[in-house]
Amino acid sequence: MNLIIDVGNTYIKIGVFDQSKIVAKKTIVQNDLDQEILDIHKKHPLIQQAIISSVSDLNPDTVKQIQGLYETLIVNHKIAMPFSNLYETPETLGIDRLALVAAAVDQYPQKNVLVIDAGTCVTYDFKNEKEEYLGGAIAPGIRLRYHSLNNYTAKLPLLEPKLPENHIGNTTNEAIHSGVVQGILYEIQGVIEEYCNIYPDLTVILTGGDAHFLSKRLKNGIFATSNFLLEGLNYILAFNNSR
Amino acid sequence: MNLIIDVGNTYIKIGVFDQSKIVAKKTIVQNDLDQEILDIHKKHPLIQQAIISSVSDLNPDTVKQIQGLYETLIVNHKIAMPFSNLYETPETLGIDRLALVAAAVDQYPQKNVLVIDAGTCVTYDFKNEKEEYLGGAIAPGIRLRYHSLNNYTAKLPLLEPKLPENHIGNTTNEAIHSGVVQGILYEIQGVIEEYCNIYPDLTVILTGGDAHFLSKRLKNGIFATSNFLLEGLNYILAFNNSR
Repeated sequence: MNLIIDVGNTYIKIGVFDQSKIVAKKTIVQNDLDQEILDIHKKHPLIQQAIISSVSDLNPDTVKQIQGLYETLIVNHKIAMPFSNLYETPETLGIDRLALVAAAVDQYPQKNVLVIDAGTCVTYDFKNEKEEYLGGAIAPGIRLRYHSLNNYTAKLPLLEPKLPENHIGNTTNEAIHSGVVQGILYEIQGVIEEYCNIYPDLTVILTGGDAHFLSKRLKNGIFATSNFLLEGLNYILAFNNSR
Repeated sequence: MNLIIDVGNTYIKIGVFDQSKIVAKKTIVQNDLDQEILDIHKKHPLIQQAIISSVSDLNPDTVKQIQGLYETLIVNHKIAMPFSNLYETPETLGIDRLALVAAAVDQYPQKNVLVIDAGTCVTYDFKNEKEEYLGGAIAPGIRLRYHSLNNYTAKLPLLEPKLPENHIGNTTNEAIHSGVVQGILYEIQGVIEEYCNIYPDLTVILTGGDAHFLSKRLKNGIFATSNFLLEGLNYILAFNNSR
């Protein structure tokens, strides 16, 4: 069994995998990680290996703790990946984006796949049917947009995300919901259409913390899934074991 | 002649109008406003009236200085507007958005008009052919998006706005330019298409500090103009004089 740890910009996601099947998962904040590792160690004694991906700064003592318990792979830009990376600045490519592409290669081999991860940021990542990673885009996520409207203006309130009732917001709150949520939906639809013009057989995956929220308003034909990043990390571990 | 002062979230825009014609304009920061008022007073001795719109906090002493020099109208939610305001929370409606709608009424009477102001925020405001203001949307502007990616993540850099070279960004910088700039362009196009579905004869105005930058990548048929808000304030002044 494998322990999968994804340290994001806001949360840490943890998954326990039996082969390629997820058997437990949890989303926590960084302060709770040490205790969580101990709890999981008790609850899942069959875990042998761990993989850690971090786009943030992880406490070195926590890393040592995990390394003490399990054979541990720390994802960086030098470990083997199951695809050709055509990104021109691989050293600045987010580790999380590598994991998403690995999941796409594993689950949709020889397909043109766009992975959209709607979390702190909305990231767009594309791999073609030759298993080449070409890059993508990074935009602010839903909560970042709500926060920035409040932080950088004198009078706009901070709101909790909500699907707008109308495109024409007739209150300040509804105008913000329309601008943020409907704006992200238009952005996602625009990106998908642009890729479809070049790759008509495109497979689109929508994942990340806000995937479920956004999928309610997106067209059919998009696969919304919540564990794609953890599945990608689990696959990177298996891929490196097999070499 | 009229002195028009628009205090935005980031900058202050000042215009001098002779009737409905702008004869001078300047964009400054708040600290330079007092001196600028004195300079303009010397340079344009024929100014008789002033109008002030502020979405931010303006120094009361500055307001007094202006009131001492000119007959001054301060825009608030109670002064007369040349349209029916159907917004349900008029007290929280940005003063700047009122001015944009006034400009639309003045320059495109009896038309369905969507005004897009790309500044600190991107605001969308719609008035119909019956001169009714229905509301719109508020989304983060270009610089807010670049800043939020840098501020709320551990590793993304702060970049200066740039039109992306490709939709698929193959470096981290190009991925950010694509996500921010192309994302806003998809959002704007999506909003315009949505309104056009309901109002096929829609007139679209694009204004604000980033209008010129964005218009390079937008379809024809959109009127890009830089003085729309100042023109709207000048019209509000004339409208109130005529009552």
